[in-house]
Amino acid sequence: MTEPSGNAAIGVAVLGLGNVGSEVVRILREHARELEARVGAPVVLRGIAVRRIEGDRGVPAELLTTDADSLVTRADVDIVVEVIGGIEVPRKLILAALNSGKSVVTANKALLADYTGELAEAAENKRVDLYFEAAVAGAIPVIRPLTQSLAGDRVNKVAGIVNGTTNFILSAMDETGADYADTLAEAGRLGYAEADPTADVEGYDAAAKAAILASIAFHTRVTAADVYREGISKITSADLEAAKSLNCTVKLLSICERVNGTDGSERISARVYPALVPLDHPLASVNGAFNAVVVEAEAAGRLMFYGQGAGGSPTASAVMGDLVMAARNRVHGGRGPRESKYADLKIAPIGEIPTRYYVNMQVADRAGVLSAVAAEFAKHDVSISTVRQEGIGNGAGLIVVTHRATDAALSETVAALGKLEFVTAVTSVLRLEGSSE
Amino acid sequence: MTEPSGNAAIGVAVLGLGNVGSEVVRILREHARELEARVGAPVVLRGIAVRRIEGDRGVPAELLTTDADSLVTRADVDIVVEVIGGIEVPRKLILAALNSGKSVVTANKALLADYTGELAEAAENKRVDLYFEAAVAGAIPVIRPLTQSLAGDRVNKVAGIVNGTTNFILSAMDETGADYADTLAEAGRLGYAEADPTADVEGYDAAAKAAILASIAFHTRVTAADVYREGISKITSADLEAAKSLNCTVKLLSICERVNGTDGSERISARVYPALVPLDHPLASVNGAFNAVVVEAEAAGRLMFYGQGAGGSPTASAVMGDLVMAARNRVHGGRGPRESKYADLKIAPIGEIPTRYYVNMQVADRAGVLSAVAAEFAKHDVSISTVRQEGIGNGAGLIVVTHRATDAALSETVAALGKLEFVTAVTSVLRLEGSSE
Repeated sequence: MTEPSGNAAIGVAVLGLGNVGSEVVRILREHARELEARVGAPVVLRGIAVRRIEGDRGVPAELLTTDADSLVTRADVDIVVEVIGGIEVPRKLILAALNSGKSVVTANKALLADYTGELAEAAENKRVDLYFEAAVAGAIPVIRPLTQSLAGDRVNKVAGIVNGTTNFILSAMDETGADYADTLAEAGRLGYAEADPTADVEGYDAAAKAAILASIAFHTRVTAADVYREGISKITSADLEAAKSLNCTVKLLSICERVNGTDGSERISARVYPALVPLDHPLASVNGAFNAVVVEAEAAGRLMFYGQGAGGSPTASAVMGDLVMAARNRVHGGRGPRESKYADLKIAPIGEIPTRYYVNMQVADRAGVLSAVAAEFAKHDVSISTVRQEGIGNGAGLIVVTHRATDAALSETVAALGKLEFVTAVTSVLRLEGSSE
Repeated sequence: MTEPSGNAAIGVAVLGLGNVGSEVVRILREHARELEARVGAPVVLRGIAVRRIEGDRGVPAELLTTDADSLVTRADVDIVVEVIGGIEVPRKLILAALNSGKSVVTANKALLADYTGELAEAAENKRVDLYFEAAVAGAIPVIRPLTQSLAGDRVNKVAGIVNGTTNFILSAMDETGADYADTLAEAGRLGYAEADPTADVEGYDAAAKAAILASIAFHTRVTAADVYREGISKITSADLEAAKSLNCTVKLLSICERVNGTDGSERISARVYPALVPLDHPLASVNGAFNAVVVEAEAAGRLMFYGQGAGGSPTASAVMGDLVMAARNRVHGGRGPRESKYADLKIAPIGEIPTRYYVNMQVADRAGVLSAVAAEFAKHDVSISTVRQEGIGNGAGLIVVTHRATDAALSETVAALGKLEFVTAVTSVLRLEGSSE
């Protein structure tokens, strides 16, 4: 297909031989000639760091090592691919690799959400590459479009479904009417949820990705601690039922947005929560374990990127793209985009963020209830869009959808509603996203 | 927001001040500080080439020139942005710019479809950049994902709606039931079709984009002449009606695909035609002037990119992304990906391409017609999936949907059907894409 390039080989070390690592190794070995043609030099696998060497891992035994520290600083390694997961171990290995002048490709969103600054500075000092397309939304190109394709535009909002586990659960709840606990158990049986699902269902994974997306979209360092976070574990089948009655579905969204601060200055918001999404919004039809990211930019308008957000093969595709780019830079000179944090915008607290809300409450079925409830919303300057009354007697339900209001005003309203004598319970409060009213 | 970078300015020349050029100039002037922060040096507009200088063009008069030849070779110009359109004039200007060591950003798909090779070689000789994200699907990042994000994967198919005019017309025909001529006239009134709509409605624009996509997806030089092309001017309201009855809609698709040649070797196909698309396919819901591109890759699986494919602002967004990348390369060293043509795959003729077909014919309403028609398909080895009979008498309609067959086999079948005594007319033959049966 192609002549050997004649250039010196690019040595690659892979840390971790799980789903992603195995697929990266497979592609490196099976597509060696194609990769050489694309890079302009042979791309050679020097070693694979694993925790234990036992049994047949499907790769030549001489490539395996438990000594990751030595592997990442080996003289014949140019690029280190980190797909171990965790934070402290990969952090030290990546820093060691960068400080030894190796370029690094990682899929580790939890690490990046907290330590991008430190890692980017190490890469900058040694003038090497730090690529991490695989950290957000698996195979879907999101990092590169934001850092490169939209580099001359002004991004105003990024809103995405970037966690497959929660999207699988919410899609299944929407489809079957089953409750959260049963659906989570089923997701576990099918391999869509881990034994300890906390990182996914409580939104930590989505928040880490939101931190990464906000950092690059707004040229500001954003860490996981800056991201407001609610998970899906309190979502009920009643919420999905109510969402349907409002022509919506429920999705766990990671949202990064430019907002006006209360002092008029430009701020940014990064937040993760389950929200009602109108059925005609492009994110509403992203079901199962799929991911999608919608980007709104000043000149480009609204863009959407859709695909498989997790799994060994899709994640490996993103890792391999980064690896080829890092290798090309080694051969031809140049570097990929470095960290951009010049804008240094402040994070707006969640209380200042205006969205629409859905409030579901149980009320006594008595004359004047609706008027009293409406008065409470008005008192806190929260304008009501629609009200739906359901059932009769003390189990009567009242569903209120508001116009845009700040989180603070809504929280005060809900607290006040809870004190009203004829409001038995405020059973659910969710935000409504993707609607302009 | 940011400290001046202290680096020498990057000079930019813009050729053309139409919708795209005006928006590029606006962004360069209004976002100068942000662009400097992203590039690491001031980005300064040196001049704008226009055909005639008359009236107020909304830019400082001293920037305007009719002498494009001098502008593209000026010593203080580092990057030339070409948004004139046409072929011979921009071709000469771009070659002059590249040969003078300028990097070039262009949105000119017609030029690239025929002359990428020549332009890429000129860029290679001078080791400068040639970027063209804006040439396909406007603001939607497609070129960069294919050349970079998927650089370590193996693309098997690219299928897209990449022409807004025809998608607007087909969407409107589907929605209103109006016929082609009336809808085209309406599109012209609304500004979605040009006075001479030939390039759009006959598929030339979509074919140029298919050539560009196939070239980069398959690392092979593909020109517009290699692309099989049919336009939408023969699509009737009856076709859209029949499509609906089959749970499909009609879209003009640009398809680039790896196929097995008749000799068993790997080949590629690039083709543009209107096709039936099942309503549950992601491309079916891409309506109006929007564009979308679906990419299928070995490891990544199916990805979709969606957004505004035309218009001054979206196209300018893509141009500006390229401009910032080219400018960063000037400041920090390095170059963007160059032409990759190592695979050099052969183009498979359309006759060898297997797809499913929809055949609509008028038949005499007579016993034995269906059996005779079915026998004709069988004789040419074209397997029938479904048959629908409509109406009675000599105007009776027969709609046949086939399983996958080659274009050659289907053409022979249609020719033979036309000779059958009781087949009054074969009124329509369209391919059916996006269904696996």
